[in-house]
Amino acid sequence: MSNPTSMQPILLDGRWVQAQAPEGSFHAFNPSQGQELGERDYPISGWADLDAMLDAGQRAAAEMAQLPGERIGAFLDAYAAAIEARADALVETAHRETGLPLEGRLRNGELPRTTGQLRQAAKAARDGSWARPTIDTAADLRSVLGPLGGPVLVLGPNNFPFAFNGVSGGDFAAAFAAGNPVIAKAHPAHPHTSQLLAEAALEALQSSGLPSGAVQMFFHTSNELGLRVVTDPRTAAVAFTGSRPAGMAIKAAADAAGTPAYLEMSSVNPVFVLGGALRERGAAIAAELAASCAMGAGQFCTRPGVTVLPPGADTDAFVQEMQRLTAATPPGVLLTPRSPQLVADAVNALRAAGAELLAGGEIADTAGYAFQPTLLKVSGSRFIEAPRALQNEAFGQVSLLVLAESQAQLLQIAQALEGNLTGTIYSDTGGADDAEYDALEPALRHRVGRLINDRMPTGVAVSPAQNHGGPYPSTGHPGFTAVGIPASLLRFAALHSYDHVRQHRLPPSLRDANPTGSLVRLVDGQLTTADL
Amino acid sequence: MSNPTSMQPILLDGRWVQAQAPEGSFHAFNPSQGQELGERDYPISGWADLDAMLDAGQRAAAEMAQLPGERIGAFLDAYAAAIEARADALVETAHRETGLPLEGRLRNGELPRTTGQLRQAAKAARDGSWARPTIDTAADLRSVLGPLGGPVLVLGPNNFPFAFNGVSGGDFAAAFAAGNPVIAKAHPAHPHTSQLLAEAALEALQSSGLPSGAVQMFFHTSNELGLRVVTDPRTAAVAFTGSRPAGMAIKAAADAAGTPAYLEMSSVNPVFVLGGALRERGAAIAAELAASCAMGAGQFCTRPGVTVLPPGADTDAFVQEMQRLTAATPPGVLLTPRSPQLVADAVNALRAAGAELLAGGEIADTAGYAFQPTLLKVSGSRFIEAPRALQNEAFGQVSLLVLAESQAQLLQIAQALEGNLTGTIYSDTGGADDAEYDALEPALRHRVGRLINDRMPTGVAVSPAQNHGGPYPSTGHPGFTAVGIPASLLRFAALHSYDHVRQHRLPPSLRDANPTGSLVRLVDGQLTTADL
Repeated sequence: MSNPTSMQPILLDGRWVQAQAPEGSFHAFNPSQGQELGERDYPISGWADLDAMLDAGQRAAAEMAQLPGERIGAFLDAYAAAIEARADALVETAHRETGLPLEGRLRNGELPRTTGQLRQAAKAARDGSWARPTIDTAADLRSVLGPLGGPVLVLGPNNFPFAFNGVSGGDFAAAFAAGNPVIAKAHPAHPHTSQLLAEAALEALQSSGLPSGAVQMFFHTSNELGLRVVTDPRTAAVAFTGSRPAGMAIKAAADAAGTPAYLEMSSVNPVFVLGGALRERGAAIAAELAASCAMGAGQFCTRPGVTVLPPGADTDAFVQEMQRLTAATPPGVLLTPRSPQLVADAVNALRAAGAELLAGGEIADTAGYAFQPTLLKVSGSRFIEAPRALQNEAFGQVSLLVLAESQAQLLQIAQALEGNLTGTIYSDTGGADDAEYDALEPALRHRVGRLINDRMPTGVAVSPAQNHGGPYPSTGHPGFTAVGIPASLLRFAALHSYDHVRQHRLPPSLRDANPTGSLVRLVDGQLTTADL
Repeated sequence: MSNPTSMQPILLDGRWVQAQAPEGSFHAFNPSQGQELGERDYPISGWADLDAMLDAGQRAAAEMAQLPGERIGAFLDAYAAAIEARADALVETAHRETGLPLEGRLRNGELPRTTGQLRQAAKAARDGSWARPTIDTAADLRSVLGPLGGPVLVLGPNNFPFAFNGVSGGDFAAAFAAGNPVIAKAHPAHPHTSQLLAEAALEALQSSGLPSGAVQMFFHTSNELGLRVVTDPRTAAVAFTGSRPAGMAIKAAADAAGTPAYLEMSSVNPVFVLGGALRERGAAIAAELAASCAMGAGQFCTRPGVTVLPPGADTDAFVQEMQRLTAATPPGVLLTPRSPQLVADAVNALRAAGAELLAGGEIADTAGYAFQPTLLKVSGSRFIEAPRALQNEAFGQVSLLVLAESQAQLLQIAQALEGNLTGTIYSDTGGADDAEYDALEPALRHRVGRLINDRMPTGVAVSPAQNHGGPYPSTGHPGFTAVGIPASLLRFAALHSYDHVRQHRLPPSLRDANPTGSLVRLVDGQLTTADL
């Protein structure tokens, strides 16, 4: 990686090379100190880089399509090990670039989550059952989910430098485990972290003998050229996590080109606290809510942005407790120089839409990038009148309390919600709220991906039963999840049917002999690991 | 169904009612005789009808979401039986409206296929395993695919009055079995057939006690109002089979609204005949090709529209044999008064793009709607120069032979193909073409949904291993199939995760006790039918 004062190279077809005719350059920032990290320049790639990556990605796709899952799995395991070998440098660099806590979050939380995710993906790739091999002997038809035939463009967000990074995170692991090469766009909020990860990926590619173009990375490009990659016929699919406006621009481009795009585009993650729960444990729930809002300085996709409360004295007490807790919480570090102003704009927009400020509301007077922990409230009637404006995500420690004016209004508020990643209902543990729960649940169920009882939505376990997805516009399709293996792999696969195809021409998963002895296949209607 | 000379009613929320303020009316046609069937008027619905159906569909969706699969299955079985009870009227009416052969096709082919499909869907709904219930006890997370929360709009094509009808076909069965109400648009080429089917559906709804809005049907509407239904927030998803231009208009509207849309939008279904196969059995393959092109007068989604041949004397003989067979084939009946001119336009477009006419090419001089069986040829070089224009689907008995000028050009032609439903390779049975097959297969594999060896693509078995789908623009998404149960159900489902949700609030498929004893669930990584 040579001279730290020079322009940093991009990872193109197995080699670190200087960007060709970049359109500019940028620096990272240290958000804790509010300072530019000027010692490394990162290129803003022009079309030449992206074009070359697409060509290399196409070549890699053709090679990867012929590889057994064992080889894909070996790379993913080697990559996880290579990340662990660089753990100190990674967590220190990520801490410097993001301000996220080094020990509690980066070293002991996000890094093991990332390597665990890669190893789960490796296991899924080796096992192959995720691809649902299906054999109908009478019709002589066989089908299996297969790779897409080209590279997948993965654009990661700013808030998880490892676990959702374009070159190492959940979308990367899923796209790769499904047999596709990845072209990753590093996030400009943590380029050096991304570079270290890509170095680990390259080492693993080489040690596992995978195609040189299987993992590539550029640091940045213009919006225009980014969308050109999205619509390029060589791009097989796109995965994006980030803001609503960027996601919608990618969706429009991908839709017009017919490119499958999986987009996680923000969510306010409504929490309903029913009357019995407030009575039973209102103060404890307020403490949970305040803590959940404060995680990562509120920069979580699943931060509870909107909390809906029934009328009554218990709600008054809850609001006061939230006001006290919010005012007492020190501001966390935001990720980018633009973050404080973006949060300020979002808070102002909520106020303009009728929300009343209860705590915070200003850019914090600290050395780093920060915004005061902020609490607002709005009436249920007003929320129903202006549901769009009051569901704008503020990507920081901002919480809006929606005060329903009647029990019936809880349902109307639920019906005014957009598609969200999560929806939570807190209810009395003894069952006193069960009728209210039953009235509310169907409306909420169809508006969220993950329905939660009695705990906060932050914290997204990597589980086969997870859904980190949800109805539009939280994502672009209600059937898929970005987290949770093997389900997340299904996004990056094409259904390949083989009709009367000769044995030796079939992929190993569809031949008469079970290739591993443990591959689960649906043969003539029965799930089995037996040979034919 | 009362007076046959009056305006026919639509099926709205469980009742046959007159259209409110229709925008006009239309008649069916008898294509065999080229005559209008003037005795019945069908309404072109205005917004009032569609709006009322969407409201009723929403109510039905809420009710259906609470029903066990057993109840959904009971309806689908009852519907199949009700269709069989009306078999004579159905096949006679469909024959009159479509000109499709009564015995060989409608009574003994398409009708049993349709009832078989409904019964397979019933079985899937009862079984529930298609929804992939998944339980992670350690994380206390459970997930299952569930209904979408609103009605699915199904728009069927003109060419299969039963098996792909909006009110009885594959999309209907899949959307309904997944737990969603259906709003069907009858195709104006067979309104009476659709009406008889909807009568059977209503009888089955009533006998099985399902919500009145679970199956609704209108006959026609304007393009503008059709797209308004697509984008209405009450519409949960759209399924469409038909022409590329109509499909693209629906796709654009659905994409902008964030509505999942599954579109089958035409395909030329390339067939490659390799040199060894031509040598070994060229005349037999020509006979298969000619017969496949003639099925349903060429009005099959999987008709082989483009056949690619290597250079050589065997190809010359193949072309001559195809010319002879095509000229000797009597024209079949086309479905609508517009059909002959549409086929003529498509043939003229192929000729304008450089194809040379070898047989047919004119509207047939028959009483019914017909076009002469038509054969064209074009050089491989020209095909590669104008791949879009030469892949325009002619929805009739039209076949384009692409004559490669070198062995290497076969691959270039494959690389110039758009996404297709099917791709076929004929090769020498002794293995003489294996090297050429291996060179060609990867390029074709990624451009088609179903890859076939040594048989024609017409004939789409309803099999779990089927893929009647393919990469864009043959459909809108490469991961889904319109035919084949249970996979076709996956299109009409949302992933529902339950996090820490109390037992009695979970759907039965996710409770500790296996609700049927035979439901296959992924519990802590193991597929099992056991209770927790």
